[in-house]
Amino acid sequence: MDTDVLVVGAGLSGLAAADAMAAVGRDVVVWEARDRVGGRTLTEDVDGAAVDLGAQWLGPTQWRMHELVQRFGLATFPTHTTGRSVLVDGDKRRNYRGTVPLLGPLQLGRMALGLATFRRLARAADRAGTHDGVGSAPIAPMTATDGRADRAGTHDGVGSAPIAPVATADSRTLASVLDGPLGDGSARAVVDAAIRVIFGADPGELSADWVAAYAAAAGGDLLDLAAVDGGAQQTRLVGGTQAIASGLAEGLDVRLGREVVEIQHDDDGVTVHARSGETIRAAHLVVAVPAPLVDTIAFDPPLPSSRLAVQRRMPMGATAKVVAVYDEPFWRADGLTGEAVLTDGPVQVIFDNTSADGSVPALLAFVTGSPAHVAARGTEDALHDAVVAAMVRAFGPRAGRPTRLVSKQWVHERFTGGCPVANLAPGAAMHAPALTHPVGRIRWAGTETATEWTGYMEGAVAAGRRAAQDIAAGR
Amino acid sequence: MDTDVLVVGAGLSGLAAADAMAAVGRDVVVWEARDRVGGRTLTEDVDGAAVDLGAQWLGPTQWRMHELVQRFGLATFPTHTTGRSVLVDGDKRRNYRGTVPLLGPLQLGRMALGLATFRRLARAADRAGTHDGVGSAPIAPMTATDGRADRAGTHDGVGSAPIAPVATADSRTLASVLDGPLGDGSARAVVDAAIRVIFGADPGELSADWVAAYAAAAGGDLLDLAAVDGGAQQTRLVGGTQAIASGLAEGLDVRLGREVVEIQHDDDGVTVHARSGETIRAAHLVVAVPAPLVDTIAFDPPLPSSRLAVQRRMPMGATAKVVAVYDEPFWRADGLTGEAVLTDGPVQVIFDNTSADGSVPALLAFVTGSPAHVAARGTEDALHDAVVAAMVRAFGPRAGRPTRLVSKQWVHERFTGGCPVANLAPGAAMHAPALTHPVGRIRWAGTETATEWTGYMEGAVAAGRRAAQDIAAGR
Repeated sequence: MDTDVLVVGAGLSGLAAADAMAAVGRDVVVWEARDRVGGRTLTEDVDGAAVDLGAQWLGPTQWRMHELVQRFGLATFPTHTTGRSVLVDGDKRRNYRGTVPLLGPLQLGRMALGLATFRRLARAADRAGTHDGVGSAPIAPMTATDGRADRAGTHDGVGSAPIAPVATADSRTLASVLDGPLGDGSARAVVDAAIRVIFGADPGELSADWVAAYAAAAGGDLLDLAAVDGGAQQTRLVGGTQAIASGLAEGLDVRLGREVVEIQHDDDGVTVHARSGETIRAAHLVVAVPAPLVDTIAFDPPLPSSRLAVQRRMPMGATAKVVAVYDEPFWRADGLTGEAVLTDGPVQVIFDNTSADGSVPALLAFVTGSPAHVAARGTEDALHDAVVAAMVRAFGPRAGRPTRLVSKQWVHERFTGGCPVANLAPGAAMHAPALTHPVGRIRWAGTETATEWTGYMEGAVAAGRRAAQDIAAGR
Repeated sequence: MDTDVLVVGAGLSGLAAADAMAAVGRDVVVWEARDRVGGRTLTEDVDGAAVDLGAQWLGPTQWRMHELVQRFGLATFPTHTTGRSVLVDGDKRRNYRGTVPLLGPLQLGRMALGLATFRRLARAADRAGTHDGVGSAPIAPMTATDGRADRAGTHDGVGSAPIAPVATADSRTLASVLDGPLGDGSARAVVDAAIRVIFGADPGELSADWVAAYAAAAGGDLLDLAAVDGGAQQTRLVGGTQAIASGLAEGLDVRLGREVVEIQHDDDGVTVHARSGETIRAAHLVVAVPAPLVDTIAFDPPLPSSRLAVQRRMPMGATAKVVAVYDEPFWRADGLTGEAVLTDGPVQVIFDNTSADGSVPALLAFVTGSPAHVAARGTEDALHDAVVAAMVRAFGPRAGRPTRLVSKQWVHERFTGGCPVANLAPGAAMHAPALTHPVGRIRWAGTETATEWTGYMEGAVAAGRRAAQDIAAGR
């Protein structure tokens, strides 16, 4: 054996797994396809400020992440929320305070109804939760058979004995669930914008049960996922979030530029092949790459059908982040937070993205879901033009004169395939247990496999540590 | 150049493409991963009879297939329909004639309403159809840019210029569309069984718009897809359907055992690498493998994001075929066709599968959709037991004594991944044009890319010929 544990993927989840293994004295090597660590965290220097082009915020109850911030001596600061936010609804512009944009009483009522409908779904998902993977929440747990069968590839350990149809569970998109209570007015447009930003996907492509389990894993409320104060966008890191990955990597044997093309596995361990020709042999393997990309790796023997079924049914969301730098934070002078929600454009949400010390005033726009896919087919200039136009609609003509524009289209990142998270398609919940179910000596990490804060940095760390604990415990 | 045209995949679609290229005097080579041709057609000898474990039937208006049958001098015979069929609905068993099982007046009314709802959807899909790919029907055609941009991978020729949200199109599963008119009684159970058999998928995982476009491509009526007389199950081939593939392959340079792992492409052509180490250089490439498996091949430069988006959003259906051979066709003596529909078991539909000369009496059971996935996790014996139990429920105790059981679980076929067809997930219609849109010198075939009889052998041939015509025409 070249090592005891090999981790494929030096995103937060893979690094957290390796860190946890190293902490209990195991030999561990990390292989990463890129020339950097951090996965979906990516911090770039823009005019001297650390700008996060990937994951960016910490929220309450994300204890693992807050601990890592302390461990690496990193400083945090709150997302700017002083003032009023802006709702751009068609040709109307209104200001509001807090998370829910100002809507007429009818649309506010519809939104309350829609969120209540959704909350019921999330509570049901939470109650059903077996806490061995978010995706398994909406359906009954299945009986695992012995590990040997897993490796045969035909009797794969995720199935229950009786062969029966899986009835009507998980048969609706989130759009179908929201159609009734929300209608198609402004309330729906605001909720759709929030959904697109949270998942990088349109409500019409998301399994309603997956979204409910996802919200349950983050505390239960979709509003908290969209909120800044007290919500998932509450806190930023002074030096950017990639510093966490760099901190974790520092004490580890991380080897960059190793794109894995084939994984051979047997009773004793795994042999992993890189495109460059390098191979490595390990007793245990943690695969910490986004689930849909696992299919780009050849497995010998092939993965069981249940695992193929799930990873072919959870495409990555699509997200483009565009940061516009300005001479001064003119929106603050206007009494505005810098936050805006737009109901009808390619940009769904804008946030204040000024650096911690205020030296680099900036706004951040999210283009997500279907508009992000369309944007990905065009030029970066077209994307920038669309974003600046949206910023002008929200904040007036001064927003039209940024000194610099920086952007990241995650669907073009070959080794991620999208952002922020891979989402289960409708009808796929029956396959979800395979997301976490080991295959022989192979264990799965990545934020998609987390039971808390799925899709967030917190979930990535939790999932990596769970994979490590399973190896340490000999499970 | 080693050849003018390389075709990857020797299923019906790839062979039809190669055949069409050879017919106009082009040099063409076919690479196939398996040790056989035929893809989703697979004929095996069972007690001296040709048994189709893959695609099996021809229907009316499938002119290309009927022509190939004539060209290769093959004989056909009608599927046995003499007598009455059986509906097993819970613990009730009823006999009926024709395609629609005998139901009470309320359930029959609901079924009529459900089918009418669906027919409206299919007509709308047909009207919207641009006839450059079934998936493109439900949405507006997009503007193609020049071929060079395709290869850059960022400005990919499938996008339209303005970046805008793709609203509420294609946001519902087929289950959601049927919920209202059909309810959840016997009519729904019968329709769900038919849907599972046609698509290998549950109504809750299918895009309603994809299903509508699919039905439109086959003439518009879901009932015709489920029917024997006058429908898609009307005619069988004496020697089995794989004979068509063998006939096409005979005059061609087909090289077996070439599993493609990487495709490099540039302005002048493609270089294709097999796992075995062989490489081949061609001026043009037709990729005729199921869309979801394209992701298992590495492309250099990478495929555009629109192409990745669609192939990661259309999993293969799941189908197991189980053939039970008997001493005599006892159901015929009982005045039964051998056809049965079951509303609540792992088996959805049973057909008479007796050989053309009557020497090998047999019944054929379909286990499809979620039950096929569950069955794939267990043993073949468990699948056989479940099928025999279903046959006994439909045809009585004599069905419990087969002399032989033969089965094929298509999800375990590494180079197909399922059967009969890859289905678009909800919300994916915006990506569907990429199914047929060329990427540089690469063109796409496979029955999923057909505009007529998508998912059938007829569609496979049509799609292969379209790819060939595009090359011949210099498009």
